[in-house]
Amino acid sequence: MESRKKESIEKKLFHLLIQKKKTLACAESCTGGLVSNRITNIAGSSKYFLGSIVSYSNSAKVALLNVPEKNIKKYGAVSSQTCLAMAKGVKSVFSADISTAVTGIAGPGGGTSKKPVGLAFIAVISGSKKSTRKVFFKGSRESIKNKFATAVLEMVYNLIG
Amino acid sequence: MESRKKESIEKKLFHLLIQKKKTLACAESCTGGLVSNRITNIAGSSKYFLGSIVSYSNSAKVALLNVPEKNIKKYGAVSSQTCLAMAKGVKSVFSADISTAVTGIAGPGGGTSKKPVGLAFIAVISGSKKSTRKVFFKGSRESIKNKFATAVLEMVYNLIG
Repeated sequence: MESRKKESIEKKLFHLLIQKKKTLACAESCTGGLVSNRITNIAGSSKYFLGSIVSYSNSAKVALLNVPEKNIKKYGAVSSQTCLAMAKGVKSVFSADISTAVTGIAGPGGGTSKKPVGLAFIAVISGSKKSTRKVFFKGSRESIKNKFATAVLEMVYNLIG
Repeated sequence: MESRKKESIEKKLFHLLIQKKKTLACAESCTGGLVSNRITNIAGSSKYFLGSIVSYSNSAKVALLNVPEKNIKKYGAVSSQTCLAMAKGVKSVFSADISTAVTGIAGPGGGTSKKPVGLAFIAVISGSKKSTRKVFFKGSRESIKNKFATAVLEMVYNLIG
C-alpha cells in the first residue's frame, strides 16, 4: 500500500469508488470543468463517473440544478446554501449515489471584502451523509482553480472513505 | 495584431466572442470537462460562457441533452449523428447563441477496429450554421483529450470567425 500514498487524489478516488461500486456526479461553478477533467484523466473512470454540470451562469444553476432563485438572491451564488442546493440538484439529475458541488471566486476579478478571490464552498452528499466546507486559497486563477479541485476530490474521498 | 498569433486558441476565442457578443455552451463526452476548463482558464470568460454538460454516460446524453436513444442504438455514442444531437441539446438547454459537442474515444481502452482510440466527432452550431467534423489523434489519454479539446475550440473559432 506504500505506493498508494504517492498516488494523486483522483487515482485514490478511482480505486475507492470502484471498490465501493458507487457512482459520482459533479456540479462545478468556479472550477469550470477542472474537477471533471481530473476525474476523467484516469482511464476507467467511466465505470463510476456519470458526468457533471458546469453551471457557470446563475441562470444555469437555477434551470439545470434546481437551485432556488431565492437562495441565490438571499445568500449569493458563492454560499454554503447555494453550494448544497447545487449538490442536491446534480445528485438528482444524474441519479448518482454520490454528488459534489463547488462554487467560489477564482479571480483575478469578482472578489469583494466579504467574499474575496480564492474563497469557495464545497458540498458533498453520499446517501444520508452531507458535508459542506469553506476553503480559501491564494495564487493565480489557474492555481486557485486547481487547489479548489484538489479540495473537492479530497472531500469526496474523505466522506466516503 | 502580431501578438495575437501567439495566443492560445481559448484566448483567441475569448476575444472573438466578446467582440461578437455571443454566448457559448458545451456538451462534452470524451474530453470530460477539459474544453470547459480551458475556456474558463481565461479571466472574464463568464461574460460569454454559460456552462456545459459533461455527459459521460449514455443515460446522461439521453436525459440531459435529449439525444434520441435510437440515435445511440443505431449509430453509436461516438457518431456524427449523436454528436450533432448533443450540440442541439446543449444549445437548447442553456439557450446559448453557439454550442459545441464532442464525443469520442480517449483510450487506452474502448477502441474497436471501426472506432479506434483517438477517434472523435465534433459539432458546432451557431444560429442557422451547423458543422460536424471527424478527427483522429494519437497519443496518451491525456494528450488525446487535449488534442480533441484544441480541435473543438478551433472549430468554434473558425465557424464564427
